[in-house]
Amino acid sequence: MSTTTLERPDAAAAPKPEQAEKLVIFAWSGDLDRVWPALILATTGAAMGKETTVLFTFWGLFPLVRDEVRITGENWMQKMLSMMNRGGTDHLKLSRMNFAGAGSAMMKHLAREHHLASPHELLDLAREMGVRLVPCQMTMDLLGLGREDLIEGLDQPAGATTALAEAQGAITLFI
Amino acid sequence: MSTTTLERPDAAAAPKPEQAEKLVIFAWSGDLDRVWPALILATTGAAMGKETTVLFTFWGLFPLVRDEVRITGENWMQKMLSMMNRGGTDHLKLSRMNFAGAGSAMMKHLAREHHLASPHELLDLAREMGVRLVPCQMTMDLLGLGREDLIEGLDQPAGATTALAEAQGAITLFI
Amino acid sequence: MSTTTLERPDAAAAPKPEQAEKLVIFAWSGDLDRVWPALILATTGAAMGKETTVLFTFWGLFPLVRDEVRITGENWMQKMLSMMNRGGTDHLKLSRMNFAGAGSAMMKHLAREHHLASPHELLDLAREMGVRLVPCQMTMDLLGLGREDLIEGLDQPAGATTALAEAQGAITLFI
Repeated sequence: MSTTTLERPDAAAAPKPEQAEKLVIFAWSGDLDRVWPALILATTGAAMGKETTVLFTFWGLFPLVRDEVRITGENWMQKMLSMMNRGGTDHLKLSRMNFAGAGSAMMKHLAREHHLASPHELLDLAREMGVRLVPCQMTMDLLGLGREDLIEGLDQPAGATTALAEAQGAITLFI
Repeated sequence: MSTTTLERPDAAAAPKPEQAEKLVIFAWSGDLDRVWPALILATTGAAMGKETTVLFTFWGLFPLVRDEVRITGENWMQKMLSMMNRGGTDHLKLSRMNFAGAGSAMMKHLAREHHLASPHELLDLAREMGVRLVPCQMTMDLLGLGREDLIEGLDQPAGATTALAEAQGAITLFI
Repeated sequence: MSTTTLERPDAAAAPKPEQAEKLVIFAWSGDLDRVWPALILATTGAAMGKETTVLFTFWGLFPLVRDEVRITGENWMQKMLSMMNRGGTDHLKLSRMNFAGAGSAMMKHLAREHHLASPHELLDLAREMGVRLVPCQMTMDLLGLGREDLIEGLDQPAGATTALAEAQGAITLFI
């Protein structure tokens, strides 16, 4: 378990710049029970001083949709997908035992009771902590989501190449 | 947490001490078809000599509930969740094609026929092999699970910080 | 974006053999919305020069079944599982909002419109790019799948040990 750092006599002479500690999360899911751990891990990583990047891709993009935006997309298929997937962090559902929202409501109630931050609060916190929140450009194109449909404070949309470049040497999780 | 490598005077002569090989699994799911690979990978990693840690979090905590414990939690919401999620490794369900248990039973039958260890056996094996089995404290609080509700032989409950500290330089999988 | 290490004049004096950049994906799912990102990430990684390996395991094995093969397995349980899981990349379903195939069809239509390669095309591309496509031997045994049931161009079936050996120092994703 120990990863002890050594004090070396010659450290100053031949500094070997170690790779920064990094955490890269592929936030693929839009389910409450996956968005939550993704954001808890991201903010925890940032608090530990790791350079943290979250790539929001596929269903994971919907939690980033602005709360007041209701229907997104340019054609009927994209609009229909957006209707079935109400965006924003306040409408997330559990992947199982959702019971038409009762399960999610119950889980959120338990979280409040235990002073666990909500996905919405965690997203704000992540931004403040300097976590890079990157929406996946390819998914945005596919779903017809524009930059103006998404919340403020995100990084430039990017794709798999950017995420994989960041991921080398990082802790990587696909959630 | 640091992964700094030491420069020593004899670094060129002596082989560079490799970082210990590590495997850190975030066992998020309580589904049979995810618990199984999580434990197969954990025991395989341990057999290969890797320092292996499994953090059981969210739904992944339920397989660790003692078999004789039926209802857990302190309030009705936690109790209801525990009723819907019968704990223990013997009551796991497939995430799809479960068919009210027929699918799971079939899969377990096939596994026995092919001499593949059950999740229960793999959990015992993991413990014997020295795999660190860590229940997530935050989830325990959220679900109202006490240490006495969980099986023996687990490590001290811990959280995201511990797991991420272990994860630096390790193979990391979110299952 | 590149993490390539430069060969410098003094590289020979202090040779620090960099580990090759590697990407190891555990393709566990047979759902369209997970097979897709798995193959996009695999081909992107290969294009970036990373040694890329995909271990197809559990439900993830079904997309590798030859299109003309309809029922696989040696006993009725395996045959039933194969009937419920039509193999091949052309019959993948979304994990949610599939609507008896309408959701998947819509998603594929959107993908074509945006010139996003299909899973079938991505699988061919991955092979051409030298991505190691490894079917999981244990799953093949469990499901009664023979090598002849699977598409051409795959690597030798292997298991968790092979994948974990590859995974050390690699970007690792369980999808």
